[in-house]
Amino acid sequence: MTLDSINSPEDLKKLTREELPALADELRQFVLDSVSKTGGHLSSNLGTVELSIALHYVFDTPDDRIVWDVGHQSYPHKILTGRRERMSTLRQFKGLSGFPHRSESEFDAFGTGHSSTSISAAMGMARAFQTKDERHVAVAVIGDSAMTGGMAFEAMNNAGVYEDLPLVVILNDNDMSISPAVGALNRHLARLLSGNIYSATKKGIDSVLSIAPPLREFAKRLEDHAKGMVSPSTIFEEFGFNYFGPIDGHDLDALIPMLQNVRRLALEGSGPQFLHVVTRKGQGYELAEADPVLYHGPSKFNPEEGVKKTVASKKTFTQVFGEWLCDMANADPLLVGITPAMREGSGLVEFEKNFPKRYYDVGIAEQHAVTFAAGMACEGMKPVVAIYSTFLQRAYDQLIHDVALQDLPVLFALDRAGLVGADGATHAGAYDIPYLRCIPNMLVMTPADEAECRDLLTTAFHQPHPSAVRYPRGAGVGTIPSKELRTLPFGKGEIRRKSNAPAGHRVAILAFGTLLYPALEVAEGMDATVANMRFVKPLDIDLIKSLAADHDYFVTIEDGAIQGGAGSACLEALSKLGINKPLLQLGLPDQFIEHGDYNLLMTKCGLDAEGIANSIKQRFPAVLMANSVISGK
Amino acid sequence: MTLDSINSPEDLKKLTREELPALADELRQFVLDSVSKTGGHLSSNLGTVELSIALHYVFDTPDDRIVWDVGHQSYPHKILTGRRERMSTLRQFKGLSGFPHRSESEFDAFGTGHSSTSISAAMGMARAFQTKDERHVAVAVIGDSAMTGGMAFEAMNNAGVYEDLPLVVILNDNDMSISPAVGALNRHLARLLSGNIYSATKKGIDSVLSIAPPLREFAKRLEDHAKGMVSPSTIFEEFGFNYFGPIDGHDLDALIPMLQNVRRLALEGSGPQFLHVVTRKGQGYELAEADPVLYHGPSKFNPEEGVKKTVASKKTFTQVFGEWLCDMANADPLLVGITPAMREGSGLVEFEKNFPKRYYDVGIAEQHAVTFAAGMACEGMKPVVAIYSTFLQRAYDQLIHDVALQDLPVLFALDRAGLVGADGATHAGAYDIPYLRCIPNMLVMTPADEAECRDLLTTAFHQPHPSAVRYPRGAGVGTIPSKELRTLPFGKGEIRRKSNAPAGHRVAILAFGTLLYPALEVAEGMDATVANMRFVKPLDIDLIKSLAADHDYFVTIEDGAIQGGAGSACLEALSKLGINKPLLQLGLPDQFIEHGDYNLLMTKCGLDAEGIANSIKQRFPAVLMANSVISGK
Repeated sequence: MTLDSINSPEDLKKLTREELPALADELRQFVLDSVSKTGGHLSSNLGTVELSIALHYVFDTPDDRIVWDVGHQSYPHKILTGRRERMSTLRQFKGLSGFPHRSESEFDAFGTGHSSTSISAAMGMARAFQTKDERHVAVAVIGDSAMTGGMAFEAMNNAGVYEDLPLVVILNDNDMSISPAVGALNRHLARLLSGNIYSATKKGIDSVLSIAPPLREFAKRLEDHAKGMVSPSTIFEEFGFNYFGPIDGHDLDALIPMLQNVRRLALEGSGPQFLHVVTRKGQGYELAEADPVLYHGPSKFNPEEGVKKTVASKKTFTQVFGEWLCDMANADPLLVGITPAMREGSGLVEFEKNFPKRYYDVGIAEQHAVTFAAGMACEGMKPVVAIYSTFLQRAYDQLIHDVALQDLPVLFALDRAGLVGADGATHAGAYDIPYLRCIPNMLVMTPADEAECRDLLTTAFHQPHPSAVRYPRGAGVGTIPSKELRTLPFGKGEIRRKSNAPAGHRVAILAFGTLLYPALEVAEGMDATVANMRFVKPLDIDLIKSLAADHDYFVTIEDGAIQGGAGSACLEALSKLGINKPLLQLGLPDQFIEHGDYNLLMTKCGLDAEGIANSIKQRFPAVLMANSVISGK
Repeated sequence: MTLDSINSPEDLKKLTREELPALADELRQFVLDSVSKTGGHLSSNLGTVELSIALHYVFDTPDDRIVWDVGHQSYPHKILTGRRERMSTLRQFKGLSGFPHRSESEFDAFGTGHSSTSISAAMGMARAFQTKDERHVAVAVIGDSAMTGGMAFEAMNNAGVYEDLPLVVILNDNDMSISPAVGALNRHLARLLSGNIYSATKKGIDSVLSIAPPLREFAKRLEDHAKGMVSPSTIFEEFGFNYFGPIDGHDLDALIPMLQNVRRLALEGSGPQFLHVVTRKGQGYELAEADPVLYHGPSKFNPEEGVKKTVASKKTFTQVFGEWLCDMANADPLLVGITPAMREGSGLVEFEKNFPKRYYDVGIAEQHAVTFAAGMACEGMKPVVAIYSTFLQRAYDQLIHDVALQDLPVLFALDRAGLVGADGATHAGAYDIPYLRCIPNMLVMTPADEAECRDLLTTAFHQPHPSAVRYPRGAGVGTIPSKELRTLPFGKGEIRRKSNAPAGHRVAILAFGTLLYPALEVAEGMDATVANMRFVKPLDIDLIKSLAADHDYFVTIEDGAIQGGAGSACLEALSKLGINKPLLQLGLPDQFIEHGDYNLLMTKCGLDAEGIANSIKQRFPAVLMANSVISGK
């Protein structure tokens, strides 16, 4: 195996051009074997095998920087840069990250995970090289869907100003993000591919090619090959980039000379270069080619048999939301569902099927999604924005300025709240409670289980204010949602367990969200009261007051950041009520939590039943001893 | 005066076309007189006089919706829609807002203030019309600089998908935002204006014109007039819009028929229309034409004499920052300064002059600004992002995902923290403490005055972590910053006044930021201890612990949202220390605070000395009585 000898791009560069296609085959097989054993992103990585080889073959990495936008196409890059043997630890605790990560390798120039950041980051690097008079090139590799994110446009707009910027943007065009790509840009790319634009004019080819003579011949060849070498009217040239392409991203004979040329152009001061590469998600693995969405991020599977569509024993919160959305849409013709390019992840597949005219996939465009929803709400529509907690961060200003300030009834269905496991820190929904509850007019709800999730979605939907219902990845304890569209009492929590401990020894646990269940478990062992708070905002002040009247110690628990979180809301309420009670806040610590098994991470954070019990015992030792004496244990 | 008879667009529509130019003259004079008396935005409003008349003359407002992007060009619109007489109350407490505001008028279809939201909002409205089968048109009026904001691109990309969308986008191209516009888009527009693009091809003109026969003649006339009627290769057509223009935005004879046509096209199902209008900021008032930046948002002035450049008695925090930036840049060649199109507002004019190669105005592109900074920081540069607190909301995800997660040393100089007075709720920097302190690795500092602001900027700059130094609009108490680049002890507050009240009666006021000074005043009257906390994160736990040891009551005070704010950080710290002390949190209430005089608003919020004293007395009556008895008052 040639691949076994490649422990760095230096090793790769020792190979002849003729040896590379065989290496690509090995690398593709390795990716497939590896991902089938660990789970992870597959389709996109099968699509970047040749591109990764070509980039490291041509560019002087790590001194030249490669920034992989989003980053779930970076496994071949990881394998080629000394991490082949650690691929078996992918996305596991202390193992390799599923995304580029600066602390993991000097070849990971920039950590990614969220979309559309690569051009900005690479431009920053390129300007730094110029400022420090270093001769390197920064490369951004960005997918066609990531190009629809506004910040990619902002970066293109800004980069085009610097006429000698050593920046190369590689558009990895596979006509497919996680959900199918949408929008005008996508259409523009399709048009580039169809060659319609190519015939327009060839003015400009010569001026570009005169800088790079070998390109002239190459261009000739490409004309037959991919149609459309240099199209002066592409949107990218309007931005001041030299545009090359489209070329076949699986053809190393096309990729390598083209990359050599754009690198030289960038180094020689010809300014930002734009290379349009066409790849196929799942390339080389028939099953993934046929269904790249299914193979976007599969769990472990047998490559011979393919991914089995298993029927999960429990519904995920995402499914509960998806079903609710269809039912609510049936009940209210003004409901519209909006997703920023996460149809599958957010559970909107059925909704799109049943309500195609009320379904909006706006592209990877969270900002637009939220203000678009605000515009609709102004006209009496009832928008539901289905969005991951971590991605709503990107529309924070729009949520404040366009939705909350105008007090518009937009419902945010916040999926992936709390830790997300294998996807790691970039995707964790750890901050939504603090960042939402400080905003006037916002309502924030934290269902404890599936049934309550549905009921709180209905409750939120009927409020004439902006609201967020946050729920975690995967399934909860498995409660069965009602068939009805029921509301819960607004702003009210409920007592789920009542302590019988004598006065002076009573603990009240205030649970926000799914940690209610480990809290109930813990409460059994120490005879504590447990409240299922349901609402972070408005907080159930009456409930807190009444608990304060006959409890001595408070514990708050939430699967979000402690700083400014729901526990802090309780502290604020108690402080305002003039009630002084010892209170222990449990939640996510003030650090970024990297990838790993969800339950393991929660244990590490002390948020499993044992951890919770230990924290309470440590903080309130006297009470617990008293209780255990009293209960005779 | 014709203008006196115009109390609604209905009145306007009664005028003949011939009467309109005279009305425009009156309206322009009214705007000038009005703004010279109240202060407010001038240049941009002088630029939209004819456009506002033409829009309300042609469109069926309020049923057709007009969304004014950013909104500081909307005074003529306000005057024409029944608010002429209230213009004297502009930007004053309970008076007219300086921006469109839904609660102010049915003609204000969407509240604006931040940039680049209009296309998303108008598209939402247009889709709502279609869903509800209502025949109206939604219009977004957007400046050329606002077009550089990523979300405008996201919206264009998405809108182009709907082939029958009743949406009109009007590009108000004045080649000038608050700071001069930058970027490739700007260059593209310049090229459109120069007519270079026009000669390319006329394919498509006929197909468009066949829908709108009167345009054919009009096009002929415009050819001589402005060059470049329908340019198939404009970036806007690539997005699926019908592009018209550029036309002279001060020529009612050009505007009105063109608007009639785009309205009809939009209503007839021809899809999104794009009209490129060229206006001049300050049009008709020579002084403003000559210096539109000076006349962007002047205070009161005499229109005969123009704005006097007065020498303020005290330096603003913005000036303190600007001077610090130059000094620090002299000391450290790796420093770069980045602004998202707010050179003047953020105090970067001198820096740009002295360090042009280390100065980056990236356009209205907050997201790109932050990730660009992150990319630079990866390469060892020391980026300082000068940004208003309210605008950092738009780069929240980039701050978390690209800066904080990678623990990169980017310094955010957060101007306009707290309330901002006349600009109102859209521009208030009320949420930065909660939204920043929940993010791991972030440092958050709140200087109490000008001298400390400089020192904390230096302190933050030397930290190997991301940091934010927040300071308010305008001047503080007037302390003189050092000439040196001094650091303050990291993470440490200081005692500014020590209570002599007997044990059991002692209040400790923990002040974050400039409210230290009213707190000191209050403390005199009640013999309280006052700590200048300086750091929200890391919080000075030792100081809190030591204050807890010999004080009975805590008061926290900050000019930001109470929910999750610095006071909550103190509550969390006390809770974690196991210390139970009554604590009163003072800060901004959980509501959006509209425009008005800063001091008046702070008084309304109970954050002037009297309000603070009253709140403390009310919350801790016993102590204060004891103190006043003890002090013999």
